[in-house]
This record gives sequence, C-alpha cells and structure tokens, in this order.
Amino acid sequence: MPVPRRRPGVRRGEDVRRLRDLLRAALLAHRFPEGALPSETDLMSAYGATRAAVREALAMLRSEGLIERLPGVGTHVMADPPRTEMDEALGVTRGPMYAVTTPPRVLDRSTVPAPVTLAEALGVEPGTPVLRLEYVAMTEGLPSAVATNYVVHPEAQRLLATSFHGHWYQLMADAGVVLGESEFVIDCVPADAGTAELLGLAAGAPLLAVEQTITDPGGRVIDVAFLRIRPDRFRFVCRATASGLL
Amino acid sequence: MPVPRRRPGVRRGEDVRRLRDLLRAALLAHRFPEGALPSETDLMSAYGATRAAVREALAMLRSEGLIERLPGVGTHVMADPPRTEMDEALGVTRGPMYAVTTPPRVLDRSTVPAPVTLAEALGVEPGTPVLRLEYVAMTEGLPSAVATNYVVHPEAQRLLATSFHGHWYQLMADAGVVLGESEFVIDCVPADAGTAELLGLAAGAPLLAVEQTITDPGGRVIDVAFLRIRPDRFRFVCRATASGLL
Repeated sequence: MPVPRRRPGVRRGEDVRRLRDLLRAALLAHRFPEGALPSETDLMSAYGATRAAVREALAMLRSEGLIERLPGVGTHVMADPPRTEMDEALGVTRGPMYAVTTPPRVLDRSTVPAPVTLAEALGVEPGTPVLRLEYVAMTEGLPSAVATNYVVHPEAQRLLATSFHGHWYQLMADAGVVLGESEFVIDCVPADAGTAELLGLAAGAPLLAVEQTITDPGGRVIDVAFLRIRPDRFRFVCRATASGLL
Repeated sequence: MPVPRRRPGVRRGEDVRRLRDLLRAALLAHRFPEGALPSETDLMSAYGATRAAVREALAMLRSEGLIERLPGVGTHVMADPPRTEMDEALGVTRGPMYAVTTPPRVLDRSTVPAPVTLAEALGVEPGTPVLRLEYVAMTEGLPSAVATNYVVHPEAQRLLATSFHGHWYQLMADAGVVLGESEFVIDCVPADAGTAELLGLAAGAPLLAVEQTITDPGGRVIDVAFLRIRPDRFRFVCRATASGLL
C-alpha cells in the first residue's frame, strides 16, 4: 500500500523541529564533548537528516543564542544555563544560587501606594504604602533576570535597612525576614523593549515569567514579585515519584 | 538635593512594564469582575499611570493574546489558563488534566533509530529502535501543546496497542505502563514556524518548553519527551515551605 503523500514543506518542517529539539537537549545536557558540535556531515549521518535540515536546525539554535557558528572553526555551544531545583528556586532550600557574588543592579527602591489588584494579592487595603524593590539579577557578571518585588511593612523596613549584595533570599535572611510559604506560577512572555535592554536581548525574545508569592510562617503575604528570566541563563528542574514531589 | 534626572523614555518604559505586570497578574487571577477591565481613565487613577502608559500596557497584553479591546465595548480578558500543580503536570497525581476529553491530534507514530545523544538520554545503544509518538494536545477543542515522545521497548508496543483518546498519562495508565520518576526541565523558546502553525500562533511567539524524562519504578528511562506549551492555555504552579515542596 502506498504511503500517503504529504506536502514536502510540512514534512521538512517537522524534521527540522525534531532535529532542533534533539540537538537542543543534547547541547544543554553537555552531550557534545567540549561543547563542540559535530560537523554538518556528521550531524546528517548521526540524525538521519538532510544538510538543509541540519542547517535550519542550527540556525534556530543560533537565533536562541545557544550556539555560535564560525567558518573554519565549527559550531560551539554558547549557553550553559544551570538547572535550578525548584525548592531552591522557591527559596526554601539553600543551594548553588546562594553562591551568587555579583551584587544585583538595583533599579528602584521606593515606597508606592498599592493599587487595588496588588492590594488584594498582598492582603492589604488599597493605597497601603508598600516597598517596590526592583533589580536586575546578575550571574557571573551578566544579567540573568529582572525582578520587581512588592513588599509589605514591617518587612519592607527591614529589607531597606539591609545591604542587598547577593541573592534575594540572602537579603531576606540577612534582614531577619523568615519565609513561610513560597509559590511560583510559571509561564513565559515576549521581552518588552525595556526588559530586553536590561537583559541584553532583542525585544520579543522569549523570557520565563514567574509570579511569586511569599508568606510569613503565619500565612500572611509579605511579598508579591514578578520575575523575567533569560532561559539561556536559568532553567527550572522539578521531579516527582508516585509518593510526591522530590 | 535634586533628584538625579533620568531619560524620560527609560522612566516611561519602566512604568509601562510595571503596569503591564500588575494588570497581567490581576487578569490572570480573575481580579476584574466578569473579565472586564476598567476604562482607561479608571486604570489611570487606580494605577497612578498616564493614559499613554495605560494604552501601551494594554497593547502589550493584547499582543500576548490576553485581552481584546473593542471600541464602545471595552477591554475584556481573552485567556484563562488553568494553573496546573506541578505534581499533576509531572504525572504523579491525578487532577483536572485527566478530565481532558478532546482526543489529541496525533502527528506521528513511527519507529525510528535513536540517534546517539537521544540514545544516551534513554540509556540504550545508538540506533536502537524507539517509538516516536508526537501529538498536539487539545484543551476544549483548542490546541494547547505539541509533544514529541521517544519511548523505548517494550513500553512502546504497549502504548501502540492502546487507544490514545485523552491525556498522555491516561494513555500510559491504560497501557499498563507504570511511571516511576518523572522529571521536568522547564525553559522557554520562540515558536518555530511549524509549531506556531500547529498551535495557531504567530512564529516567534514565546512557548513554555519542557524536557521530560520518565522512568519506570526501577529507574530505567522509558520516555524522553519535548513539550511546547501555549502559555495562555497552561501555567505551572509550584509551592514549598521550609519543610520542602508541597
């Protein structure tokens, strides 16, 4: 029985997308020794792909900032985003993130009246003064995320009186602000022009977007934050078994 | 002491970005009754913003597909992505996702030789035949994600012999394939042209990207999957206390 014919363009698009996915996973998992990708010819044979498909897949990875291609030199991995465990990202476990030594670039540290929807999220009356603490998180000297935190009083005063020289959770700990529950809602957004400039990206580049809510140990909301994260500098890892999250 | 002067464009960009973040969070949290946003004038007064900033922030939300603006009708919320708890997303807990009744649109169900990097991830010899099962997940009749699964044998045969009419984890359960550990690595990517077409989006639109690894109860990898998810149709939620992930 003849195989049903398909539009060649569709078929080729699928091949490119699948090849891109496999190469993307492989390079992020350090499966190419010394971050050097095989030649186009070797990739064609290893992945059963045409030269055109290999080139298109590599072009996609290049546009994501994951690889660089230099004539005569080859194709090299340019990004190595650490995998951050979710419990560490949420701030309940100390991990490698605490090793951050580059101080954040603080953009704003001002007191603003909470608009009604933010007030609802923070559990305060509309118009209540809250601290807006906004910064660019730096990883090894490079901007990795923009975070806008809205913090209620009295925790806000304690944060203001404390030197912010490392990670956000370090600031909280240094200020004696104890975290009760931490929640992430994770999605993604296109970078607006301002965020793109702060993070050294082109406008429209995809960013991980996190809405974080932190309570004190009594369940009172003390911080609502909006994070915009470069995916080539940060990835979240989460795992579970039938017994629950690990 | 005079306040340092800043470029007005930068200042305005920050205002717009912050307003966008607050409005985005508010509409996704159903804080606007009946999904109707206040008028521009009311937003200006509620958020202390200029009309230009309100319009720019709304334009950003519109370009994300989150709102629609109709002259004489107003501004309405157009997206209501469910928040999926991470343990359910990972497949270890049964939740609302299992209520999915729209069958997936299967794109590919074929046996392919595992290229070397995929073989390493699956823990098999390069060239080992694996099942590539690729589909578009549908939510209420609309495409929400593209998933490419690579499944080893003998689990692959069991999945092939089973009707795929609901959610992926339902398929696994129906096929008698027991999940041991499930891992997500979460980042985001721009939609390539093919994925964009499958999901009804413009090319370049940001998508959540998940690399999933599923093992059997003995720790043997049985499935490596690449998921591309529309953020306006799906969001991940994760929370923790000092005792660990919840």
